[in-house]
Amino acid sequence: MSVRALLFDTFGTLVDWRSSLIAELSAFGVARALEVDWTRLVDDWRAAYAPSMQRVRTGALPWTVLDELHRASLEKLLAERGLRHAFSDADLEHLTHAWHRLHPWPDTVSSLEKLREYFILGLLSNGNVALLIDLVRFARLPVEMSFGSDLFRHYKPDPETYLGACSLLRLPPEEVMLVAAHNYDLRAAAALGLRTGFVARPLEYGPQQEKDIAAENPWDVISGDLHEFATRLLSSPLVQIGATAVVGDDELA
Amino acid sequence: MSVRALLFDTFGTLVDWRSSLIAELSAFGVARALEVDWTRLVDDWRAAYAPSMQRVRTGALPWTVLDELHRASLEKLLAERGLRHAFSDADLEHLTHAWHRLHPWPDTVSSLEKLREYFILGLLSNGNVALLIDLVRFARLPVEMSFGSDLFRHYKPDPETYLGACSLLRLPPEEVMLVAAHNYDLRAAAALGLRTGFVARPLEYGPQQEKDIAAENPWDVISGDLHEFATRLLSSPLVQIGATAVVGDDELA
Repeated sequence: MSVRALLFDTFGTLVDWRSSLIAELSAFGVARALEVDWTRLVDDWRAAYAPSMQRVRTGALPWTVLDELHRASLEKLLAERGLRHAFSDADLEHLTHAWHRLHPWPDTVSSLEKLREYFILGLLSNGNVALLIDLVRFARLPVEMSFGSDLFRHYKPDPETYLGACSLLRLPPEEVMLVAAHNYDLRAAAALGLRTGFVARPLEYGPQQEKDIAAENPWDVISGDLHEFATRLLSSPLVQIGATAVVGDDELA
Repeated sequence: MSVRALLFDTFGTLVDWRSSLIAELSAFGVARALEVDWTRLVDDWRAAYAPSMQRVRTGALPWTVLDELHRASLEKLLAERGLRHAFSDADLEHLTHAWHRLHPWPDTVSSLEKLREYFILGLLSNGNVALLIDLVRFARLPVEMSFGSDLFRHYKPDPETYLGACSLLRLPPEEVMLVAAHNYDLRAAAALGLRTGFVARPLEYGPQQEKDIAAENPWDVISGDLHEFATRLLSSPLVQIGATAVVGDDELA
């Protein structure tokens, strides 16, 4: 039994959504001469993410893709600040699509390139397929498949997402590893029999980040960044790919 | 209005399934000292493709992925030849997976690399996602997404496949082009409002090929190979990507 496919959580694990959004929204603000605390707005926007998906999960909202949840929460946050009038529909569309233009962390692309030699690589994200395709193009993520939440019409951590991806891969869960910077995501995957890889991203939520600083369970692979993850995974007993696959830290650094 | 995404039919359009399968099965026969007319077997195997999907389409069979249809038709063809006993289950699995190891036509990869600069590229195939992911890896196809038939639980030319891909892309059909070597596929796409690109593959079925030698309708783009397709598309009024995108034939040759 060996891991054959890696599914990567995307926001936070592979791409730095916070810095990317702050940079893009700040530039927009300068161009429009708008005085807004963009960092605060981005943090509030992200904070609206879990509750908005929860409304879909409980059935309070019918199935709604993340692009539309992002758009609605942005509109609400601007309205609360008395700023809604300053944004046209085209502006809202443009800013919502800033989530399609997120920069990868510095170790992301080179680590994925290395891992791709040995494993099928996919995204398993609450983003919808169209958003993920744009991200793959923008951040040049070398993955073979984007398992967006709209394929399953469920958001993580609903089991339909993890098991749906395994089913499309035609692999049993124990041959699939979820790689994520978030313990809740790994807990859900582990409960279904998937393998688990933790990558610490202690700056995902900015310098004051408190949660997900460290692994909270004995995940199959625990690492401080994605280079370290690749090295540890390739020398793990979960992987049987021959001696040539076991590489040293410096080969990946 | 401009084309933003290209969906490629895969078997025949991007990869040369016939030569690839004949080569792989012949090598298997040599290794096992089996005297089989492998070319004939491959042609019969492919001929079983449309009827087997038709059984799913009519409901005679419940939803079944192409891997399983391939496996069942191979088993039947071997049984008809009195050869079933010479193949273990592992052999059948291995040979069925020859469909995951098909070589691209010589113009495929370089043309896709060029087109990827301007368009979202996806596969839209009757293959299942796991098969397509393996093909993408094996043939090094630079596409962002594999829209396998199991995403829709329908086979082309059912409308659910073409419209399902447009819906996941969040694009109206007129901004999506199907690129295929098969007129029936383009007819189905055109009827739903998608744009159409024909690429002649006159050797797909071998030297005696009779059908799909030429375009049978005035498709939006008609070309003799994929390099020519890229050149014609990039200079087409369907595409508005600025003057720099209009390249000459020799730039792509």
